[in-house]
Amino acid sequence: MIRARVSGRLWSSRHIGTIPTGALLEVETETGAKLIAFDPLGCAEGEQVLITQGSVAASYFPEKTAPIDALIIGSIDQQTSKAK
Amino acid sequence: MIRARVSGRLWSSRHIGTIPTGALLEVETETGAKLIAFDPLGCAEGEQVLITQGSVAASYFPEKTAPIDALIIGSIDQQTSKAK
Amino acid sequence: MIRARVSGRLWSSRHIGTIPTGALLEVETETGAKLIAFDPLGCAEGEQVLITQGSVAASYFPEKTAPIDALIIGSIDQQTSKAK
Amino acid sequence: MIRARVSGRLWSSRHIGTIPTGALLEVETETGAKLIAFDPLGCAEGEQVLITQGSVAASYFPEKTAPIDALIIGSIDQQTSKAK
Amino acid sequence: MIRARVSGRLWSSRHIGTIPTGALLEVETETGAKLIAFDPLGCAEGEQVLITQGSVAASYFPEKTAPIDALIIGSIDQQTSKAK
Repeated sequence: MIRARVSGRLWSSRHIGTIPTGALLEVETETGAKLIAFDPLGCAEGEQVLITQGSVAASYFPEKTAPIDALIIGSIDQQTSKAK
Repeated sequence: MIRARVSGRLWSSRHIGTIPTGALLEVETETGAKLIAFDPLGCAEGEQVLITQGSVAASYFPEKTAPIDALIIGSIDQQTSKAK
Repeated sequence: MIRARVSGRLWSSRHIGTIPTGALLEVETETGAKLIAFDPLGCAEGEQVLITQGSVAASYFPEKTAPIDALIIGSIDQQTSKAK
Repeated sequence: MIRARVSGRLWSSRHIGTIPTGALLEVETETGAKLIAFDPLGCAEGEQVLITQGSVAASYFPEKTAPIDALIIGSIDQQTSKAK
Repeated sequence: MIRARVSGRLWSSRHIGTIPTGALLEVETETGAKLIAFDPLGCAEGEQVLITQGSVAASYFPEKTAPIDALIIGSIDQQTSKAK
C-alpha cells in the first residue's frame, strides 16, 4: 500500500455504467504523484490515507467488474510510530 | 486511476483477434507519459479523462480475454473542486 | 497499452516448460525502456507495435499458466492521427 | 519481490472492514521508496525483509477480498551470498 | 518480460509457509534496478535471464497461493540477434 494525502475531488458526469456510486478523490503520494482513488470512508481534504492499488482495489466491490484500480482502505492515525 | 488528456488516435489494421471493436486513443498523463487506452465513451481530442489500468480494465469487457490493460472510464467535469 | 518499436529477438534454449511456442521480441518503448514481449503476429525489426502488459497478456493464451506478462496485440498503422 | 527495511509502523483506527487483523509496517526499499506492507511475521524496526506485491500479496489471506497489495513474506538472513 | 542478470542469492530462514521450496535469486535489470526472483532453472551468478512479473509469475506454481511476483522463465542464449 502507499501513504497519500487527499488533495481534491473529481466529478465525472459522463462515465461507464460500472463505476460504483461514491466519491472519487484526488490524492497526492509522498513522491508528489497524483492518483484518483475511490473513497468508501468519507475522507476530508488534507487527510492522510492508505491506498491499495490494482485488482486488489477492485475486489472490494461486490460487483465483479468495478473498474476501480485505487482504493482508500484507511485513514492514518496521527500517532503512527516506529516498528516494535 | 489516473487523470489524462486525449492526444490522438491509433489505428491497427493487423492485430490479434481478441481486441474489442472500438477506438484506441492515445492519452497523455499529468507526468507527460503516453498510454494507449480503449475508449468506450467516444471522447474527443483534448478531453480530460479518467483511466483505469491493469486487469481491472480488461474486466470491463464481457469477453474474458480482452487484451486491454488501459480503459477510459469517465470524462472529467471541468468544475472539479477540493475535497469536502 | 503502450506503443513500442521492435528492436531485436531473443532466444532461450533453456526455459520453463510453460512458455508458449513463438517469438520473443525485444521492443523499445517511447521512453527508451526495453521489454521482451511475445509476438503472435510475426512482426519485423523496426515495426511500431502495441503492447499489453500484466495478467491481461497471459490471458491471451489458452493455457491457464502461460508465464507471459507482455504481448504484442497489434501492429500500428502509419497513418495514425488526431482523435476525432 | 523486492528487498526492503522496516522503518516504522502505521495505525489506522478508521478503515474498511476487510483489512485483516495484524500489523501494517512502513518499509523502505533499496531505492528509498516507501511502502506500507502487511506483516504476518512480527518483524522489528531495522529488519531486512522480502516484499511481494499486487494480487499475489492478497492471495495470502483466506478471505478472498483482503485489500492488501504488499506483504512481507520473509525476513532476510544476514549471510546472504553470491549465486551458486 | 524483462532481461536481467543474476547477481546473488538470498536466504530467508524465517518466512511464511507458502513460499515454494527453491532458490531466490537477486537479479539486476538493464536499468540497474534489483529484484528478487524465484529460480526454477538453477541459474548461475552472471547468467542472463528472462523475468516475468506479477500474478503471472505466481501462476507457475501448482499451489494457488504461492506469494511469488517475479519468476525466472528462461536463460537467454548468447547469440540473440535482430528481429527477422
